[in-house]
Amino acid sequence: MKKTISVKIGGVKIGGGAPIAVQSMTDTDTADAKKTAAQILFLEKAGAEIVRISVDRPASAAAIPRIFEIVRQKSKIPIVGDFHFSGHLLLEKFPDAARLLDKFRINPGNLGKKNRDENFEKILKIAAKFQKPIRIGGNSGSIDREILAEKRDKNRGKPSTEILADALAESVLRSEKFARKFLPAEKIVLSAKMSDFAGVFFVNKKIAQKSRAPLHIGLTEAGGGLSGICKSAAAIGALFSQKIGDTIRVSITPQKNESKSREIEIAREILQSVGARRFFPEIISCPACGRAAADFLKFAENLSQKIRREKNFPPLKIAILGCVVNGPGEAENADIGIFFPGRGEQKIVVFFRGKKIGLFEKNHFFEKFQKIVADF
Amino acid sequence: MKKTISVKIGGVKIGGGAPIAVQSMTDTDTADAKKTAAQILFLEKAGAEIVRISVDRPASAAAIPRIFEIVRQKSKIPIVGDFHFSGHLLLEKFPDAARLLDKFRINPGNLGKKNRDENFEKILKIAAKFQKPIRIGGNSGSIDREILAEKRDKNRGKPSTEILADALAESVLRSEKFARKFLPAEKIVLSAKMSDFAGVFFVNKKIAQKSRAPLHIGLTEAGGGLSGICKSAAAIGALFSQKIGDTIRVSITPQKNESKSREIEIAREILQSVGARRFFPEIISCPACGRAAADFLKFAENLSQKIRREKNFPPLKIAILGCVVNGPGEAENADIGIFFPGRGEQKIVVFFRGKKIGLFEKNHFFEKFQKIVADF
Repeated sequence: MKKTISVKIGGVKIGGGAPIAVQSMTDTDTADAKKTAAQILFLEKAGAEIVRISVDRPASAAAIPRIFEIVRQKSKIPIVGDFHFSGHLLLEKFPDAARLLDKFRINPGNLGKKNRDENFEKILKIAAKFQKPIRIGGNSGSIDREILAEKRDKNRGKPSTEILADALAESVLRSEKFARKFLPAEKIVLSAKMSDFAGVFFVNKKIAQKSRAPLHIGLTEAGGGLSGICKSAAAIGALFSQKIGDTIRVSITPQKNESKSREIEIAREILQSVGARRFFPEIISCPACGRAAADFLKFAENLSQKIRREKNFPPLKIAILGCVVNGPGEAENADIGIFFPGRGEQKIVVFFRGKKIGLFEKNHFFEKFQKIVADF
Repeated sequence: MKKTISVKIGGVKIGGGAPIAVQSMTDTDTADAKKTAAQILFLEKAGAEIVRISVDRPASAAAIPRIFEIVRQKSKIPIVGDFHFSGHLLLEKFPDAARLLDKFRINPGNLGKKNRDENFEKILKIAAKFQKPIRIGGNSGSIDREILAEKRDKNRGKPSTEILADALAESVLRSEKFARKFLPAEKIVLSAKMSDFAGVFFVNKKIAQKSRAPLHIGLTEAGGGLSGICKSAAAIGALFSQKIGDTIRVSITPQKNESKSREIEIAREILQSVGARRFFPEIISCPACGRAAADFLKFAENLSQKIRREKNFPPLKIAILGCVVNGPGEAENADIGIFFPGRGEQKIVVFFRGKKIGLFEKNHFFEKFQKIVADF
């Protein structure tokens, strides 16, 4: 898969091989600057690396300077304005909001019917003036009706998800082409969200084949609970297996007693699952074989549990192996390798990034191990 | 992707386009026939369509007739014997177990060193005699050491996950070739499990390219909690996006207070997520943002919960959206679409299969909604 273009959102890079950023969105009324600013900071603390706020009406746009004033006292997190229907009007009328926001999200499906190009042009010119990146964010729920009708005519008999995905890809790609008249490629991010697995996979694959813009991916309206997690992980996993995706948002409906930060927690677990990011310690341990000491499995399990429970344990990749014969080969990519020398012996061999550190006793190994980790 | 061969496990078909069956495994001591039989029935009730039991020693093999006696009074669920190391000895010594079991799972990595082919041949001849299907189930944790060493020599410099996956695919495919001397293709299922996303994806893709045998897929040792769910869903999602996978098992470590049936619940959610099966009503609901009415989230959650709790609710696709941005579009693509007109308004708009039915009050909406569903 070709590399995408790198786009800078405030101080965060998206695309071009940058770490996959976790995004989130506030659910406060943006017009309430204090609440919105507090939630932005809360989401950042939970792990969001870019936060989006809805800018739905004049009162919301008017609150943006105050939101930035509060947030910027503590944080540089990029704040993105989410515009629908009235983006061109709000950005014109509130130049301070346009100047402050780190990115504008525009939905090509609701820029207007008659005046679509005209409205879009207004937004693009404001983005160009303030040198802001935009995301052209299509969504199957608010797709351009004309393109959909066109695709339906041409593809009678095809499954409706595929037609919808095809129309959505087309809508986003046409908007990208239009936007390029006003903005350089380094200012354009694309996304196309749908609420089902097949659609999300199909639409993003199509866009990735035709554009080098970085892709913001996610399954929209995933619902809540286990179902929302599985839908999000399956769709994002499928796209990552094709090397598609430069930043993600998990759009779940929070359940009772679930914090707004739950979607961030899930996003981080998904990124770690697919090997894209490392937020927590990753523990690899072998199932033991005839060479391993009898107490190896128990030791490995104990150590894993302790590492996971320790809140501030750095997100290293730790290999816990039963013997040195295959140890080095199996743990080539591990930060820390812990090997039992073999049956009957009492010492443990520890490697750090391929270099042998020494031999350790099994007793109180975790405490010594913590010290080793802290030392590096 | 080519179609896989259809293999019958008891009364359940795997491969050849059959519905993707959910598998599970008991964690009782198989020698305890009563407990094991009870757990098989429990897992079936939770949604398992094939259940595997460990046959690790003579006492376990000896308990199999009693297990079948108890289970078959109530259920026809296929019961699979999981053999390691001693499969050839146990199946020879306990012909009743061999006759009763609906499939034998054999691990090519632990059939023995010197006598591997000889031991495997014994099992295959017993399978042929009783006309039983087998699963050749490789696992990165118990991989054939000779093949791994061979692949390492040939692929110096490649990432170790890829070498491991390559060796595992080779081990499973060689065993398949060997097995075909004794069994027809209609009796062979394959699997190759690894504990990381990239490995699971790579190894299954490789096998699917070279064999038409149905594939049992899953990520092994996924761990517990959110991480185990995300790893499993991402890996299975990635494979399904390539049309790979004929039956699944989710291998999580149950957390405290989690039932043994949790893995089945997750497996079902994953299959529904990727569109392979429909077990529950499919609910599409947005995460709400600044545009939604203040009570939308509560309403959406309540309604979702009620729909899910209602045992006989038909497995329809239901969209519950908070505003007009994506509401009408999603509503059209669902069987039933429900959306809030927006901030401040009191009525709910309901669509049925693309047709607007009308406006409804929020009060006692579920009861009205049930009536609408019943009417159609």
